[in-house]
Amino acid sequence: MNQTIETLLNHRSIRKFKEEPITETQLDTIISAAQQASTSSYMMAYTIMGVTDEAKKAKLAEITGQGYVKNNGHLMIFCADLYRHTLHATPEQYEQMLSNLENSEHFLVSAIDAALAAQNAAIAAESMGLGICYIGSIRNQLDKVDEILGLPKHVIPLFGMVLGVPDHQPDKKPRLPKQAVYFENEYNREHHAELQAFDQTIAEYYQSRQTNTRNDSWTDQMLRRFTNPMRMDVTGIVKKKGFNKQ
Amino acid sequence: MNQTIETLLNHRSIRKFKEEPITETQLDTIISAAQQASTSSYMMAYTIMGVTDEAKKAKLAEITGQGYVKNNGHLMIFCADLYRHTLHATPEQYEQMLSNLENSEHFLVSAIDAALAAQNAAIAAESMGLGICYIGSIRNQLDKVDEILGLPKHVIPLFGMVLGVPDHQPDKKPRLPKQAVYFENEYNREHHAELQAFDQTIAEYYQSRQTNTRNDSWTDQMLRRFTNPMRMDVTGIVKKKGFNKQ
Repeated sequence: MNQTIETLLNHRSIRKFKEEPITETQLDTIISAAQQASTSSYMMAYTIMGVTDEAKKAKLAEITGQGYVKNNGHLMIFCADLYRHTLHATPEQYEQMLSNLENSEHFLVSAIDAALAAQNAAIAAESMGLGICYIGSIRNQLDKVDEILGLPKHVIPLFGMVLGVPDHQPDKKPRLPKQAVYFENEYNREHHAELQAFDQTIAEYYQSRQTNTRNDSWTDQMLRRFTNPMRMDVTGIVKKKGFNKQ
Repeated sequence: MNQTIETLLNHRSIRKFKEEPITETQLDTIISAAQQASTSSYMMAYTIMGVTDEAKKAKLAEITGQGYVKNNGHLMIFCADLYRHTLHATPEQYEQMLSNLENSEHFLVSAIDAALAAQNAAIAAESMGLGICYIGSIRNQLDKVDEILGLPKHVIPLFGMVLGVPDHQPDKKPRLPKQAVYFENEYNREHHAELQAFDQTIAEYYQSRQTNTRNDSWTDQMLRRFTNPMRMDVTGIVKKKGFNKQ
């Protein structure tokens, strides 16, 4: 097993960091790695916002409800970005661009481009001994995050990432069995049994982990999550920012 | 610079492969690495479809217009998947889940989860000396791809990936300057100059690369792309599959 595979398989989300900013050199390497990720038709349809301003970090920590959004080695917000593609367009060309800029195809493209770049950033950071955690909860109040970062139309925040020197070593969280996520040639609709086996695994994990033990299963967790409507305002905010409208 | 950073920075898309399938061990490692990627609130909202059936590969090559979708060491299609989250729901619970399953928030979550897993797969493959290329052109006829793979409602193909032993070594494609994709604290709306500098870089790259030289710039390429409506049917197909409806 090579060093890279070891890094990939060793991932766990880090939510407690030493009071130590990452270095400029580390940040440069992380951004370069992010930029080298694949990108759909060379669109590079994302922007990375570094947040170092303490007041902005405090606001984002409040929105996400997570203290480690304030206390970390560095905070980045990954955004879908189709704005820079319009910068050299005449007003007529811009009008002509709208049906592409605002359709689901390019909403997907920009979200995927941002995620590929982010995952390269995560792997680069972890390979240097840093820890990371994705922050989906910026979507609790997407419009406020958008405002804090001063984003123009056709740019929208998708998720954050905190990085830093780990100050804990959580257990590795189990994943679904391969048989439930990888199929060959035809989707297998009947994978109840695999999910039930996984419920057993995860019940044991929640009971045995170092902190925060509880009684739970994966299918129950998902039922609870999906039967409670959440972030129903994301749709409207996304459209208002000029994405996913048609 | 560690081995992982080297792998990340050395990425180029490979579109010509030796006639050599990847091994079962390689595939297992790649899928394990994909699965260990971060996932939003433990949802693991993606499925990877391996395609080995020659007739299916031929159909997908036709849809994408790319011969290397047929001729490679392995082909995978990454899908957004919220189906398995419904498997243990009663009909009443399922009804209650719909507003979540079908909103933009969970369309985003599943697309991002799929992309994070895919990028881990790509890095794992590249670290073992394999080459990869993402295939966005499966979205040329998304409904047909969906049918070929037999996907249930709440599962939708997003993009493909070909893998294998590289049979060419293309030049590394330049990326936008860091100053155009990474901003601190406040988005910089005035990055015309950075894009113009990049246009110069990319014009030189297109002139000097080993094959397929041409006169072009990045901003022109993007203007051409966005002024020509494309894949306008993706919106409707996505909704029909139970995503991104509300």
